[in-house]
Amino acid sequence: MDAPFFNTVDRIEFEGPESDNPLAFRWYDADRVVAGRSMRDHLRFASCYWHSFNWNGSDIFGDGSLDRPWLHDGDPIAAAEAKMAVAFEFFEKLTVPFWCFHDLDIAPEGHSFKDTAANIDHMVDLAAGYQERTGVELLWGTAKLFGHPRFMAGAATNPDPEVFAYAAGQVAHCMNATHRLGGHNYVLWGGREGYETLLNTDMKRELDQLGRFFNMVVEHKHAIGFEGMILIEPKPFEPTKHQYDYDVAAVHAFLQRYGLADEVKVNIEVNHATLAGHDFAHEIAAAVTAGIFGSIDANAGDDRLGWDVDRFPVSVEQMTLGMLEILRGGGFTSGGLNFDAKLRRQSIARDDLFHAHIGGMDTMARALLAAASIIESGELDRFRDDRYSGWSEPLGTSMLAGDHTLAGLHERAFGAGEPMPISGRQEHLENLVARHIERAR
Amino acid sequence: MDAPFFNTVDRIEFEGPESDNPLAFRWYDADRVVAGRSMRDHLRFASCYWHSFNWNGSDIFGDGSLDRPWLHDGDPIAAAEAKMAVAFEFFEKLTVPFWCFHDLDIAPEGHSFKDTAANIDHMVDLAAGYQERTGVELLWGTAKLFGHPRFMAGAATNPDPEVFAYAAGQVAHCMNATHRLGGHNYVLWGGREGYETLLNTDMKRELDQLGRFFNMVVEHKHAIGFEGMILIEPKPFEPTKHQYDYDVAAVHAFLQRYGLADEVKVNIEVNHATLAGHDFAHEIAAAVTAGIFGSIDANAGDDRLGWDVDRFPVSVEQMTLGMLEILRGGGFTSGGLNFDAKLRRQSIARDDLFHAHIGGMDTMARALLAAASIIESGELDRFRDDRYSGWSEPLGTSMLAGDHTLAGLHERAFGAGEPMPISGRQEHLENLVARHIERAR
Amino acid sequence: MDAPFFNTVDRIEFEGPESDNPLAFRWYDADRVVAGRSMRDHLRFASCYWHSFNWNGSDIFGDGSLDRPWLHDGDPIAAAEAKMAVAFEFFEKLTVPFWCFHDLDIAPEGHSFKDTAANIDHMVDLAAGYQERTGVELLWGTAKLFGHPRFMAGAATNPDPEVFAYAAGQVAHCMNATHRLGGHNYVLWGGREGYETLLNTDMKRELDQLGRFFNMVVEHKHAIGFEGMILIEPKPFEPTKHQYDYDVAAVHAFLQRYGLADEVKVNIEVNHATLAGHDFAHEIAAAVTAGIFGSIDANAGDDRLGWDVDRFPVSVEQMTLGMLEILRGGGFTSGGLNFDAKLRRQSIARDDLFHAHIGGMDTMARALLAAASIIESGELDRFRDDRYSGWSEPLGTSMLAGDHTLAGLHERAFGAGEPMPISGRQEHLENLVARHIERAR
Amino acid sequence: MDAPFFNTVDRIEFEGPESDNPLAFRWYDADRVVAGRSMRDHLRFASCYWHSFNWNGSDIFGDGSLDRPWLHDGDPIAAAEAKMAVAFEFFEKLTVPFWCFHDLDIAPEGHSFKDTAANIDHMVDLAAGYQERTGVELLWGTAKLFGHPRFMAGAATNPDPEVFAYAAGQVAHCMNATHRLGGHNYVLWGGREGYETLLNTDMKRELDQLGRFFNMVVEHKHAIGFEGMILIEPKPFEPTKHQYDYDVAAVHAFLQRYGLADEVKVNIEVNHATLAGHDFAHEIAAAVTAGIFGSIDANAGDDRLGWDVDRFPVSVEQMTLGMLEILRGGGFTSGGLNFDAKLRRQSIARDDLFHAHIGGMDTMARALLAAASIIESGELDRFRDDRYSGWSEPLGTSMLAGDHTLAGLHERAFGAGEPMPISGRQEHLENLVARHIERAR
Repeated sequence: MDAPFFNTVDRIEFEGPESDNPLAFRWYDADRVVAGRSMRDHLRFASCYWHSFNWNGSDIFGDGSLDRPWLHDGDPIAAAEAKMAVAFEFFEKLTVPFWCFHDLDIAPEGHSFKDTAANIDHMVDLAAGYQERTGVELLWGTAKLFGHPRFMAGAATNPDPEVFAYAAGQVAHCMNATHRLGGHNYVLWGGREGYETLLNTDMKRELDQLGRFFNMVVEHKHAIGFEGMILIEPKPFEPTKHQYDYDVAAVHAFLQRYGLADEVKVNIEVNHATLAGHDFAHEIAAAVTAGIFGSIDANAGDDRLGWDVDRFPVSVEQMTLGMLEILRGGGFTSGGLNFDAKLRRQSIARDDLFHAHIGGMDTMARALLAAASIIESGELDRFRDDRYSGWSEPLGTSMLAGDHTLAGLHERAFGAGEPMPISGRQEHLENLVARHIERAR
Repeated sequence: MDAPFFNTVDRIEFEGPESDNPLAFRWYDADRVVAGRSMRDHLRFASCYWHSFNWNGSDIFGDGSLDRPWLHDGDPIAAAEAKMAVAFEFFEKLTVPFWCFHDLDIAPEGHSFKDTAANIDHMVDLAAGYQERTGVELLWGTAKLFGHPRFMAGAATNPDPEVFAYAAGQVAHCMNATHRLGGHNYVLWGGREGYETLLNTDMKRELDQLGRFFNMVVEHKHAIGFEGMILIEPKPFEPTKHQYDYDVAAVHAFLQRYGLADEVKVNIEVNHATLAGHDFAHEIAAAVTAGIFGSIDANAGDDRLGWDVDRFPVSVEQMTLGMLEILRGGGFTSGGLNFDAKLRRQSIARDDLFHAHIGGMDTMARALLAAASIIESGELDRFRDDRYSGWSEPLGTSMLAGDHTLAGLHERAFGAGEPMPISGRQEHLENLVARHIERAR
Repeated sequence: MDAPFFNTVDRIEFEGPESDNPLAFRWYDADRVVAGRSMRDHLRFASCYWHSFNWNGSDIFGDGSLDRPWLHDGDPIAAAEAKMAVAFEFFEKLTVPFWCFHDLDIAPEGHSFKDTAANIDHMVDLAAGYQERTGVELLWGTAKLFGHPRFMAGAATNPDPEVFAYAAGQVAHCMNATHRLGGHNYVLWGGREGYETLLNTDMKRELDQLGRFFNMVVEHKHAIGFEGMILIEPKPFEPTKHQYDYDVAAVHAFLQRYGLADEVKVNIEVNHATLAGHDFAHEIAAAVTAGIFGSIDANAGDDRLGWDVDRFPVSVEQMTLGMLEILRGGGFTSGGLNFDAKLRRQSIARDDLFHAHIGGMDTMARALLAAASIIESGELDRFRDDRYSGWSEPLGTSMLAGDHTLAGLHERAFGAGEPMPISGRQEHLENLVARHIERAR
Repeated sequence: MDAPFFNTVDRIEFEGPESDNPLAFRWYDADRVVAGRSMRDHLRFASCYWHSFNWNGSDIFGDGSLDRPWLHDGDPIAAAEAKMAVAFEFFEKLTVPFWCFHDLDIAPEGHSFKDTAANIDHMVDLAAGYQERTGVELLWGTAKLFGHPRFMAGAATNPDPEVFAYAAGQVAHCMNATHRLGGHNYVLWGGREGYETLLNTDMKRELDQLGRFFNMVVEHKHAIGFEGMILIEPKPFEPTKHQYDYDVAAVHAFLQRYGLADEVKVNIEVNHATLAGHDFAHEIAAAVTAGIFGSIDANAGDDRLGWDVDRFPVSVEQMTLGMLEILRGGGFTSGGLNFDAKLRRQSIARDDLFHAHIGGMDTMARALLAAASIIESGELDRFRDDRYSGWSEPLGTSMLAGDHTLAGLHERAFGAGEPMPISGRQEHLENLVARHIERAR
């Protein structure tokens, strides 16, 4: 295998909006300060291991198309080492400050739990060295509890407690690895935590199992002194018919029910939001409102397709609305923007991985500029405040404070006049947003 | 106007499966005992006022097509009286034990709150008489907080506290009316409690308003001694872009957050479930699991259309899966099956309203028979119990009891073997269900 | 009623991208020449009568919210006259070069065909005067064959030939009116030309009826010397369960079958495209490919909602891809961009109608600039030409010319090597498009 | 590997509706005559090779779960032979009269076209022997033009003519094999004949390529004397963003444009229909109407999931509406019902494949009984005929015959009265259908 693998690409530099160089950033200027923080700190970009280095371009109808030589090669550990070398070459050249992994992206599954654990430990040692040498940090780690057939009926929600126990061991191992690598968060994605058919499913029992599992995760976090955030990633379905972590609201209901609302937050993925029938911005606003906003998987769906297409984000318009809610919620703390996105299957040139990430990073950077500009101008917030201003007056405050009863308001209604409607001004506000997007620079 | 209005239809009788009389029940045999209760008590059918007597057949592209003379006629109160006479003629002939209403279905809106309230009171008096004479009971009442332009930006979630106050008065009046008529439940449908655009919306503030409003409803219920259940009806969108009561999970999250989980349950509508991306049976199972199952709006969507088509239910296959979850959850207490369904716009013959309800009632009755047969045979439950049987053994029970840590299970995983997968048997179980449906009689 | 109605708004002027005046154009500069034509001639904007002046803000769950006094007022003809005065005030102030109407937008339906025809003739006379005084031209007219209950089961596809005959008369009248007003096109929208259920529908028969009807339309066009284009507007469903003119492909199949492919083209609506599962740009490309591209209804759907939301277009990103296909197809001839869009129901301020149209016009103008820039730079077309370049070499040209048989190519395959895959470069091209959108000015 | 593989299952027998034996047919009684033909001849069931014997249970998120030992084993030809032995064991035990295959299901891909061709020829020889010994016939063959990366940008629509040429050779080889095995049809599925992004796509050029390719297929059919039908299988998307053969209408438009409408018909798949937004029955009716109905891929989608889930059909209700349109269209000629369906990934017991097919066959058999009963009773057709009866009277026949002009009908409208609306009776007809489904036996 060649070294360096991406031999036609050097470190990606910021060249500014006027650059025509497709292998330069036009908008992502890491040190530029926007709304009080550098772009690097606002956006906290991460690249993911699985789609970029562990996927060969296959889809459900076709074999791998991508040039990923390490996926074919002999010794699994040697292959994993070669893959990691390429991954860190990529992270460094892209200047992305974070990465993310599944345990079984970075290390091959062995013939037993013990073998697999040893493989992971070996690769984590290696990763620690790469992190140190490159300065790239770990945004989050996660355990792959959906690929192996043992998880076909779920991990924590499996009808077989042996699978639950196995999954618990695997998560412990992966949390330990994440802790060792200084991970800022630990993510739980319940790909198979759901059902295929209610006919063979006991939902109550499975949710209780899941509640117990997540409580053990939180307990383990504290036991080992891991200070990162625990995150759940909502998704409505796929691979399952129904996933328990359907959307932010479903996760919020679950967390409250199992006493986890103060300990666990959400990692929102754009395409998972849209598959659940929600705008990306909605899911962020819902999470901020519920106090459980954590992190983002920045990708894009296709509004005409009903599965997880995991495109790189290209819509500044969509992402501006998302960044606006993130900024309103105070921005990221330990979370960040992970590109949980994959190349199109025909994008087989080695540098396509750079084009895709550069496009994604510039899209998000420009969305940040537009959102910050909207907030700084104050126009939108002023309009919104005016709209609700009645709630700061005596009737509003006293009703919210609980000083009224239905009976009292019933009595009052006989004498009160007809409320005066005012325009919601949606088109006007949409034009305002468009103006900020145009001018974002 | 003619009297009786449905002059070609007599009281609908049960004639059994072999009858070819389209104006008879083939399956709904009110006194027949199934699984320990009469069909009447199991199904608790209700007919709704709005679609059947207050809708003229208009849709968003066309004017009214139906023969509803009272909707055109002069004096509003006289028209409302004529309408009520026809409605009770219908309920009696259909032998449906319950009805449901919105305040502004039965009474015309006046020029002021006071006028409207007087209109409602007049019609409630009349309804009380009809109830007494016919024995038809009120399954639930509800206030129409979405038709008048004053509610265009929501009722409880309106940016204007005057609208909140108006809505509170209206709900109080309607709860009182429902109480007076012996209603078994009171339903809150938040048609406009949501948003059109996040740009002008403060989600946190609106949810706090809604939480306060619902708490006032519960307080009022206790204050007036109403013993019915308070129900929220989930719907994802339409008329709004997003409705806060999106689905059962969203309602459950909300109820927990605002301290209402023990006081409020859900009224699940089939087509609202499917618009939210859920099977009808899923939403019931989710509600039963959360302990908030209340009542059903029995209608059907069209899986190819993206709005609320409110068809009468015709799929025994779909409804059997729903009834199965209802029976597993213990059946209805105060809730029932309300036909929140409307005729197709071309069904302009007077007796079409009977055909539609008879089809719906027979569909649900047959679904009840199939679901009861599945439960009585025990095959499905046996399979399910076997599937989870490991959770009754020491490892399972101790893990659920909290006697294990991740670290302990991590340690254990090094020695445990590979779990043994077993078939989920989905096709086998689907065939089993099909067999019970075929044989239901 | 006030005159002028829009008393707070003057003629909308172009002020350029730096303007903060929400009642000015930032991008639509009518006389600016782009890619060889003025913006006015490229975009050929039209405002529609129905949504803007004939709709009161009602939706399926609520009454009218908008300030449209002429919809309430006494004498129908006086009201229609008042409405037309406001409409032309609006067109002039907006500087929109075209308008569009349904026969029953501009004139009230009478008690008979004859009365209605007289009402239309009266209003057409008036419109002719307004057109002359203002210079506003008619992009197209169309007959409303879906509002009255007589059309509940279709117009041309009605099971009753009397309805077909009535519709034929109505279309003749409306075509004559359109001709008199110098209309550039005549549009057929088959809102009820489809079915609710196959159970009562003879599809073959209905399509034959429709084929005959459209042939009569074409014959009438020639008979009266109307030189505009006849257009069909595809839509998949709503109000019907299924509409025969589902999408461009379905219309193309129909036109070929009934000998109309040279005489009739399509009027593509953005939200109808997306409801049918197609991107807007796809439907344009499909129509251009089939040689039946005509005109555009420029609006926007909501990718999370399953009905025709008819928003004003706000996405430069979406519209750039559409304009790109329009420009590639040679641009409009007689067609144009009609804003078949309506205000949100809460946008009740009078000037909201201006904000909405200004936003739509600036969105489309900016999309035109971006699309023209993409074409002028040649980068995208160069890439595409390279991608297919093999088809200009001997093997490609001879295969397309029909000089090969499967048997011959079978023989050849035994000796030919493996084709060399090349990258599709999707992400690279998406970044390229993003660059042109950013820079469009 | 064991022989027989399905060692717990014997030949499946018809035992009638009262049987509780899950490994018997309750409804499919091959020799029973329904509406003039045996069930065997009406339904023409086929089992498919790919999902049942060539798929290991993997999905996009997980590895194979199924017990398919031949997929892992050493020598590719030996494995293919073992697989074929199991397949024909299954076909015989299931008593299914037909099978279907892709060239690369039955034979492994070699290192060159020549090797692959030899592998196919070897396996075809073997299959011919199995067919002779078992009496199982070939419903259709098809070439797999979507799995190998060379087809990532399409086969006939590839930008590289070398891929087109390769595909042509492959199809010729597969048609020859199908011919040799006495195939009743040959199917073209254009899994990659579409696009991922319009940015790199020349739709016109690609459609011309496809038109030429299909014409070569038809020419080859005649050249080799193959008398089966050529079929195109519509699908809207997946794996592509857009597939040219989107639905029946799109295929019909294409066939007409490229002069193929008399030579090629459609193979309609249930889940492809629903993904395109159409009911299964609609697509059949559309194909019958267009004169291009050919064959069926009998499976089921999931109305809540947006990808091709390929379940076995379980809904008698859905399939009755489909069979009704098939019977109305005259039933199958060379086509049949191929179970293009796969097990759920958790259905890992060997006999699950039997349960799934038995359920599918009984579902379709019961749907046939219900549909035949509806037709025999004549009620539905009588209603439909009455509904259109006006078209047999002078006005209707003369208008359809072209004896009227718009101008003439315009004149007539001034004197004609208002048409009399009649009820569409949808609910009544739905109840009628439900009655026939209940009673089907």
